[in-house]
Amino acid sequence: MNGVYLAMDLGGTKTALGLVREDGQVLRRLRLPTPELRRGGDPLAALIRLGRQLLTEAGVETPSGVGVALPGPADVESFRMLSAATIPELEGLPLREPLESAFGCPAAGENDANACALAELRFGAGRGHRSLLYFTVSTGIGGGAVLDGRIYRGSRGTAAEMGHQVLLPTGGPRCDCGSEGCLEALASGRGILARARAAGLACGDAREVADLARTGHPIAGEVWRETALFLGLGVGNAISLFDPEVVVLGGGVSLGAADLLLEPVREVVRRRCMPNLARPVPIRLAGLGEDLGLLSAAVLVMPACSSGPGTATVK
Amino acid sequence: MNGVYLAMDLGGTKTALGLVREDGQVLRRLRLPTPELRRGGDPLAALIRLGRQLLTEAGVETPSGVGVALPGPADVESFRMLSAATIPELEGLPLREPLESAFGCPAAGENDANACALAELRFGAGRGHRSLLYFTVSTGIGGGAVLDGRIYRGSRGTAAEMGHQVLLPTGGPRCDCGSEGCLEALASGRGILARARAAGLACGDAREVADLARTGHPIAGEVWRETALFLGLGVGNAISLFDPEVVVLGGGVSLGAADLLLEPVREVVRRRCMPNLARPVPIRLAGLGEDLGLLSAAVLVMPACSSGPGTATVK
Repeated sequence: MNGVYLAMDLGGTKTALGLVREDGQVLRRLRLPTPELRRGGDPLAALIRLGRQLLTEAGVETPSGVGVALPGPADVESFRMLSAATIPELEGLPLREPLESAFGCPAAGENDANACALAELRFGAGRGHRSLLYFTVSTGIGGGAVLDGRIYRGSRGTAAEMGHQVLLPTGGPRCDCGSEGCLEALASGRGILARARAAGLACGDAREVADLARTGHPIAGEVWRETALFLGLGVGNAISLFDPEVVVLGGGVSLGAADLLLEPVREVVRRRCMPNLARPVPIRLAGLGEDLGLLSAAVLVMPACSSGPGTATVK
Repeated sequence: MNGVYLAMDLGGTKTALGLVREDGQVLRRLRLPTPELRRGGDPLAALIRLGRQLLTEAGVETPSGVGVALPGPADVESFRMLSAATIPELEGLPLREPLESAFGCPAAGENDANACALAELRFGAGRGHRSLLYFTVSTGIGGGAVLDGRIYRGSRGTAAEMGHQVLLPTGGPRCDCGSEGCLEALASGRGILARARAAGLACGDAREVADLARTGHPIAGEVWRETALFLGLGVGNAISLFDPEVVVLGGGVSLGAADLLLEPVREVVRRRCMPNLARPVPIRLAGLGEDLGLLSAAVLVMPACSSGPGTATVK
């Protein structure tokens, strides 16, 4: 069977494997907590075993490719994870060669935010476009950029670190990157919770802050208005630098609190991102839902369609 | 004679024309106040006449190309200036065809910050690199990005608007772009002067604020420390998004107050731009001095050298 891709979405907490067709249809899925991969002491062997199991069940002898979305910065040549806090066995391990020989097909891997950007361009909210910025707003804030149909990685592989724009020159909260006042420290799930608590709300996570805001709680409402200001400025600054065709917001916070965030973020961008320019950039929610992870992994190894706009290539 | 390019650097206040060799040597120069171009009512005819004069003096019959650096946003296909406050006769006028037929060679034009970025990559502080961000800090703050050896324009031609990053979410000064708290409103020559005056200094321009700071004046010193903080954050944010090989600072303020700005800007980037990353991006002053304008115009029409790193192509 031709045109079926084996997709592996390695997350910090959950891992998914699936079979994906070139048109973006997911034929099979399998999910497990990431720590289970580590049980036998060899997560790579576990991934290969699970992948073979999926292929056997579907009657696919050789997939067209294996794509892997990695939870963190990665060297894309051999695709090694440069740091892998939750799967330390894989840190620094080149994955391309063992996957290619195990499955007899090409393999490709990429940090997950870059992979999501490409998947949203090819199958999701960015269809029909050639350039897209992707913001993932969840526990932290990550990002990916697709320019002229290709993932843009920069000179050190650290491009599109949307979350580490500094938005407060002085007095901002500390960020994990070692700086302070970064977008991530302000508007990620953790950042939102920290601001809510500092404002006196006894919430356990950003979702509870959202629930409170929806009941009309004025302080919780203000926390979300501030979140939209920070996120809108982060999006607007990225637009001023990259001038993309479309911006896509994904991740648990964007999707779970879209009612509190999407329109306010658009409004901040309208007012604060070079408002005198005539043509605004559309800002959309990620469109691939639960399958984004699997599609993002699969798209990494798919050939570029060269038949028009919205096509994508990977190096 | 082969390999001689006619360069036209149209500035808001001054215009320069010159003949430039492919190795970056400037053979001839001619400067005039831009308003003089408008005297006869036809600035394009005046440019052509002056260009012919230069060529005749140098004994060049047909140049290898005509490159034009334009003072503002431009459509690069026909190269029309989209707005041209100081030379309104040229606004919206396609320049490619008349220049190509007047000089019998290819012509290319581009907004000046983009052109400077490419010239610094090919001949100046970015030699040997493939990607470069250029910040011009003068009356305003503009920028240009060269990625993978080519000018990066974005989807609307407004990429690399470094000056319109918002660095103060609330309470910042108004910016000409219609927003507030932009880098340009804070750290351009005008922004520096406005902050100096608000701090009680009776200065006429940013140069006087720099002179005061050099005498040890504590308030003027503080104005420059703040300037370096804003500029450093603007540079750092652009690094977080583009991950370039090198950043180049040009423009009258960067060059005229380099003693007050360069090291402090580097220090801000070290502390505030993802400091946990191991490999910092070098930040350098523009290296082409007085000839940057002419070289930036000429480089637009030069063929790419495909012989290794540091080479540049234009669309």
